[in-house]
Amino acid sequence: MITGLNHVSIVVPSLAAATRRLEAVYGLKVGEAKVNEQQGVRLAYAELGNARIELMEPTRPDSPVSKFLERNPAGGIHHFCLNVDSVDATSREMAQKGVRILGDGSPQRNVHGERIAFVHPKDFLGALVEFEETGRS
Amino acid sequence: MITGLNHVSIVVPSLAAATRRLEAVYGLKVGEAKVNEQQGVRLAYAELGNARIELMEPTRPDSPVSKFLERNPAGGIHHFCLNVDSVDATSREMAQKGVRILGDGSPQRNVHGERIAFVHPKDFLGALVEFEETGRS
Repeated sequence: MITGLNHVSIVVPSLAAATRRLEAVYGLKVGEAKVNEQQGVRLAYAELGNARIELMEPTRPDSPVSKFLERNPAGGIHHFCLNVDSVDATSREMAQKGVRILGDGSPQRNVHGERIAFVHPKDFLGALVEFEETGRS
Repeated sequence: MITGLNHVSIVVPSLAAATRRLEAVYGLKVGEAKVNEQQGVRLAYAELGNARIELMEPTRPDSPVSKFLERNPAGGIHHFCLNVDSVDATSREMAQKGVRILGDGSPQRNVHGERIAFVHPKDFLGALVEFEETGRS
């Protein structure tokens, strides 16, 4: 079951430059950068109170995020993430309704160790959508 | 001042079909559709609790949203919207820092009559970002 909006994710060519810009120009506070080796991205989050902006920079050329950056060199909105009560249960329910969950079926985790899954954009109105199981609102 | 995340906006070829899909497959409730004549879009919102998904369908060929749909026929993420305490004050502060606010400088309003403004994507990490002045969280 979908329970809220967790974050909007932006791919950027430089996480350090994006962090400086959000802080200096937009008055946002960006947290510490972390690396997700599985997905080949360095990430940081700008806190908005009710949700967050995720900033992602690729850490290797074969990262899916690198391909996005090739098509959008200045960066851009990559996906958004919905909170769900259970990634497994929600993914299973969606799959029964014909929704394709990306990957090989094995559990994925974000940098916080939380369970995540991605829905094929063609099955969510053209938008890449992540499900995240989290205690946060 | 930015105070929260208001919505993520998806452009869709058919608002009716998108509404049916979000309700039947994803268990979301989509509100009544309304038309914004100024922007040439028909809109509806799926409530997520802490924020919303906006669905937009163009109402005329010269709508900016029509051009987006030409490039992305299946639809896709168009922008996201941040809550601000004051659209005028925030836009003025951002402009002083070199941020381009889209349009002719005249106030824009959304379908609820609330003041809005759009930031040039090149000035927000490649993402089209809307500011909205609203009492809602």
